[in-house]
Order: sequence, then C-alpha cells, then structure tokens
Amino acid sequence: MKEGQGILTVISGFSGAGKGTVTRKILEQYDNYALSISATTRDPREGEENGREYFFKTAEEFEKMIAKDELIEYAKYVNNYYGTPKMYVQEQLQKGKDVILEIEIQGALKVKEKYPDTLLLFITPPSAQELKNRLIRRGTEEMDVIEKRMKTAAWEAQFMDQYDYIVINDELQTCVEELHAIIQSEHKKSARNLVFAEKIKEELEKEVKD
Amino acid sequence: MKEGQGILTVISGFSGAGKGTVTRKILEQYDNYALSISATTRDPREGEENGREYFFKTAEEFEKMIAKDELIEYAKYVNNYYGTPKMYVQEQLQKGKDVILEIEIQGALKVKEKYPDTLLLFITPPSAQELKNRLIRRGTEEMDVIEKRMKTAAWEAQFMDQYDYIVINDELQTCVEELHAIIQSEHKKSARNLVFAEKIKEELEKEVKD
Repeated sequence: MKEGQGILTVISGFSGAGKGTVTRKILEQYDNYALSISATTRDPREGEENGREYFFKTAEEFEKMIAKDELIEYAKYVNNYYGTPKMYVQEQLQKGKDVILEIEIQGALKVKEKYPDTLLLFITPPSAQELKNRLIRRGTEEMDVIEKRMKTAAWEAQFMDQYDYIVINDELQTCVEELHAIIQSEHKKSARNLVFAEKIKEELEKEVKD
Repeated sequence: MKEGQGILTVISGFSGAGKGTVTRKILEQYDNYALSISATTRDPREGEENGREYFFKTAEEFEKMIAKDELIEYAKYVNNYYGTPKMYVQEQLQKGKDVILEIEIQGALKVKEKYPDTLLLFITPPSAQELKNRLIRRGTEEMDVIEKRMKTAAWEAQFMDQYDYIVINDELQTCVEELHAIIQSEHKKSARNLVFAEKIKEELEKEVKD
C-alpha cells in the first residue's frame, strides 16, 4: 500500500440487493472511481463486448494467466473460469483511482486475505422479505430460480460480518452516497496516512530544535 | 455498545489546528450531534456560563464525582480538575445522538481504553509551517507562547497514529464535511450492525425452510 494510491474496494451483496445498479451509479456520479473488469472463459452473450463486460479468454489463455500469477483471484463455475486481472487494477490504483470489484463472497474473502487493506462492502436490502419482493418484482425469473437465489442468500449471510461495512440499500441514491462516503473516509484512516504523520512529526521536531 | 445508539467521537488536534471551529461548525450544520460539556474546578472566566462552556464544580464536588465513577475521564492541570461527566454523554448516546468530546490526547487514549468503540479523530494542518503560521496569524499570543505550543504539538504528534483517522484541516468546510462523512460511515461498520446481520440471516433461513 502506497499513500496517495486508490483503494481496492469490493462490493458484494445478495443477488437482488441492487449492487449492479449501485456500482453503476457510483461510477456515473463521481470521477475518482474505476471498475475492475473480470476475465472469463465463458462465451460472450449478445450485446456483450470484449473489454467492457468481460475480457473474453480461451481456457488456455486463462490458465496461462493463472500460471503467471496475473489474477488477483479466480474461480471456476460450471466449467468456466472467472477472475480479476491484476494489471488493470494496479494501474488504476497507482493513478489514485479507487477501484471497485463487484465480486462474490468467496472471491471477496480471497482478495482480503491476499491484500489486507482491501475495503469489503456488503449491500443488503432491509429485510429478507424485501429481498424476495425485489426478486419477484423483477419478473424475469421463475419461482424455482427465486427460491434458489434465496437459498444462496441464506448461505452468503453467514459471511456478512466478515465484511468491513454493511450498507442497507433501501433508497438507491442514499445508498450510493453512503458507499461513496465510506470509501472516501477510508482514505483518512491513520493506517493509510502513516507517511504523512511521520512527515509532520519530523517537521515539528525540526521546528522545535531550531 | 447497543445498535441504534450514537457514536462516542473524540476530536483532538494540535492547538491551532482549528478543532474548536470545526466542532462548532459540525454542531451548527448537522442535527444528529451533541457536544459533551466538561466539568472543571477552575473559576469561570468572563462570559462563561455554567452548563454551557463548562460545568463549574468545587474540588469537593469534583472529587465526589471521581469517587462515584461519574466521569468518563479526568485529569488535573495546574491544580484544577477537568473531566467528562458520564451521565450527559450516555443520555445523548442512548437518544441516538453522536456525542463529540473535544479533548486532549491523553484523555482521548484513556477514553478509548475504557470504551473501545470510541471513534478517535485527529485534526492537523497540512504542515508544521502552516501550524506555526496560523498561531502567528491569530496575533493573540507572544512568540514564547507560540513556541511552547509548537513543542506541545511535537510531543502530541507521536500519538497521531493511535487515532482512527487523521483529517487535514486545509479548507474549513471540506474538513467539516469529511469529519461528518467519517462519523456517519462509522455507523455502517459491520461490528456495529451484528444484530441486524443476525436478524436478516435468521429471516433468510426461515424463508428457505418454509
């Protein structure tokens, strides 16, 4: 961690909590953020562009990235790899951009283990009932898919307290502003300002000696 | 610590860093704060009112408060006692108000030891030179007083990294907004939302079982 660098920020949350919308709004409303783009071996869906939704890779390319330690974290779901390329994230952090990773809980905890100064944010609706209502209101999914998502949420809820912050997404704009405030406040943590603290300490000591 | 309660917040900083002004502005601009009022055995100065600047006490009364454990912290300076009465702070925290204590470093660290969920904020000018400039610009103090204050600052700087956050007071309004964002973000810390996390976990488990 270098002072003046951006903060690696993970946003996770139950499916239906609205983390995609919230992330998009943060990127739209504030100019100090960059979104990490995942790499995957799954086929692009209609309308998806390489380098926008994902970096699309062959399994061979992906395995080379793993071998060269070019991924912050990766996992295999349903025979496809998904992972976070290191290079783009590091470039943006060095430029001072706060980089948002929108990833699942297992990935999030792996990132935190590897980079302990990662900020883990968990987004949740105010209640389980509200989560279910939102999944139903979407109207895009069958009842059995909704129930599967609720099961996943129940499993994920066990790990909520391992996140640094829990943010309730009740009113969208409030949630966006709260997340922004948390990330910007993180820059003021004393652990992230030890070089500055040392500098002013030395200046004061010099001032007193003169 | 009870969820939904206010946050006990200590604001400290070098003499000349502007912590008095910053604290006053926070109380003026936002309505969820209460300022803790210290008790002291020193005589009131002209214009000071009991219960506004300080609670003025006799030494006997103050020592009774110590004996009854009615103070969060106290210290003796130049034969006078200064301390933070517990009752008012607890009442305000229970009402959900974030209570600001504007106290010195030794007091701050004592409070944190006793109440580990206290938020310690340190305010500093951007440089030692700027601190000196501000003390000179005030124009109210002789050079030897300014030098004494710089010496105190050099001593205090050793403890800066024991604070949770270091906030640079360069532009007043920015500093006020940053402090407010830090305190409000603190409410979202997962350690302060474990009851909520447990509640939604139980709701989800129930939902999945039904």
